[in-house]
Amino acid sequence: MKEPQAAESGEDRLIARYFKPLATHPGAFGLLDDAAAIAPPPGCDLVLKTDGVVAGMHFFPDDPPDTVARKALRVNLSDLAAKGASPLGFLLTLVLPPEIGDAWLAPFARGLGSDAAHFACPLFGGDTDCTTGPITISIAMLGAVPHGKMVRRAGARPGDRVVVTGTIGDAALGLILRREGSAAAARWGLAQDQQEHLMRRYLVPEPRIAIAEALRAHASAAMDVSDGLAGDLAKLCRVSGVATDIEVRRVPLSDAARAALAKEPALIETIVAGGDDYEVLACVPPDNLEALRRQATAVGVAITDIGAVAAGQGQARFVDACGQPLALAHPSFSHF
Amino acid sequence: MKEPQAAESGEDRLIARYFKPLATHPGAFGLLDDAAAIAPPPGCDLVLKTDGVVAGMHFFPDDPPDTVARKALRVNLSDLAAKGASPLGFLLTLVLPPEIGDAWLAPFARGLGSDAAHFACPLFGGDTDCTTGPITISIAMLGAVPHGKMVRRAGARPGDRVVVTGTIGDAALGLILRREGSAAAARWGLAQDQQEHLMRRYLVPEPRIAIAEALRAHASAAMDVSDGLAGDLAKLCRVSGVATDIEVRRVPLSDAARAALAKEPALIETIVAGGDDYEVLACVPPDNLEALRRQATAVGVAITDIGAVAAGQGQARFVDACGQPLALAHPSFSHF
Repeated sequence: MKEPQAAESGEDRLIARYFKPLATHPGAFGLLDDAAAIAPPPGCDLVLKTDGVVAGMHFFPDDPPDTVARKALRVNLSDLAAKGASPLGFLLTLVLPPEIGDAWLAPFARGLGSDAAHFACPLFGGDTDCTTGPITISIAMLGAVPHGKMVRRAGARPGDRVVVTGTIGDAALGLILRREGSAAAARWGLAQDQQEHLMRRYLVPEPRIAIAEALRAHASAAMDVSDGLAGDLAKLCRVSGVATDIEVRRVPLSDAARAALAKEPALIETIVAGGDDYEVLACVPPDNLEALRRQATAVGVAITDIGAVAAGQGQARFVDACGQPLALAHPSFSHF
Repeated sequence: MKEPQAAESGEDRLIARYFKPLATHPGAFGLLDDAAAIAPPPGCDLVLKTDGVVAGMHFFPDDPPDTVARKALRVNLSDLAAKGASPLGFLLTLVLPPEIGDAWLAPFARGLGSDAAHFACPLFGGDTDCTTGPITISIAMLGAVPHGKMVRRAGARPGDRVVVTGTIGDAALGLILRREGSAAAARWGLAQDQQEHLMRRYLVPEPRIAIAEALRAHASAAMDVSDGLAGDLAKLCRVSGVATDIEVRRVPLSDAARAALAKEPALIETIVAGGDDYEVLACVPPDNLEALRRQATAVGVAITDIGAVAAGQGQARFVDACGQPLALAHPSFSHF
């Protein structure tokens, strides 16, 4: 399937031009070798995660390339944060249709480089390939935690409190705005800055790397919320062998989400099940809650107590303002 | 872009059914957590590599799924071998069109699991995504070498010998057979077993993991041959800041390749530039050559001396049987 080309290839030039500047770790050898050689931090476990994004599935083909890059990196950083880990660096597989050129690659690499520097997460290596399909980006992320200290999905115990960082549902509402535009904004009565807030939350999530250490110290279990709070909580409950009772009115909302929900109460399902939040969901022994909140607040991350862990076998129950169980038709996202 | 689904999703079931059996390392947590936690071997550097394959570009959509899986893993293992590293495990991103079901996934996972066990290279984690395009597989490979001992592309010195493992050109000829079928086989006068040899070499390369230790001990520089001997040698020459003089008649050929070349001498270009060999190309100080050969032979890997390193700036020269320079129109493969 391979067509031979000249010795110093377009692939070499593409890598040298756009991606070598991101390979700031000496063990990446300026992307001039076949592999990177990285000395892992002593006494630490590697935390390993891979997540891919596909144009038309995870992002819109006309999303700004710099935000596509930043989101592709950040969804992986979000997992590290929830596991109590710090980033070491990443590998990138970039699969591109032939029409993709400098106009897309330059801002893509700029966005990726900007976040790689911001999160101290250099590019260790990568691969570029051609496809007849949509742009496909896979990132393999390496992080580190002190040995044995990764925060697991397993570990939640009855009596623990359930907390989330930031606000929930913004990205799912931002996605509706991205799809429907002014119709949804008008229906929800949103001001321009509220619309922008929701769409920005969809385009560029905020990985909660700053609270990794506090999670290691205080959480009994954690994961990031990527496929919807309800569905991800159910996953945590199943692995921990517990149930949870979440009070929907406690789920933290942005002003914009609150405004939209007031106009369209059925949006509660989108908010708790829509996904793309990239906030941290954690279970915390009650005695640890204030310490976690204090440490999180000190690094600018809000923590909200949304409910309790109970005995059970995987039930993630939500109760509405009247104490009635909230029945969710589609609690989570799945590709298959 | 996400469509919510039921809590225990098809994605969860797919992972549990096909990929959990490959996640034999305890730090993969049976793929039930967001990330793996792996204690790296003490005193070692991590060797990191990622390589993706796309249906229609790197393999035929109707290639047997088990060989697609094995090749996707082996092309990464081949890089580890050439860097003197031993495999630790891998991350998998599997991007599938919606029509892919059990009939493809079951043999794919079986092939991947068989090789993961054979090469002691367990699955650490992964991601499955849907696409409107072709099957796309990205593997991020983790290996280990004693600290500071990764064999680099840089390091070759004038006077070193240039060696390759195994035989060169089989896969490129196998690809022609795969495309043209009996027409090419008849033109080259190949027996059935010769045809099968070449096609098998294209479908399932043999990563030379067994000689990693010998390369660390004896090679001044190395890389694997994936994009064609001529082009890959030129890359090594550029990074090492040397030239090489290769005697084409010394390039090791299988019986099948030798038979085809005898009937069609122009195939020499395909053989030295065609790619997909996944053999190791190494530069070796002359005093180390016999020790390397002895160690390689002991583990069943043939080593052939094909030429010499000379002073220069990246020239990978080939000389034919008459001492004339071989001019290659297309010395290497590139995706762009």
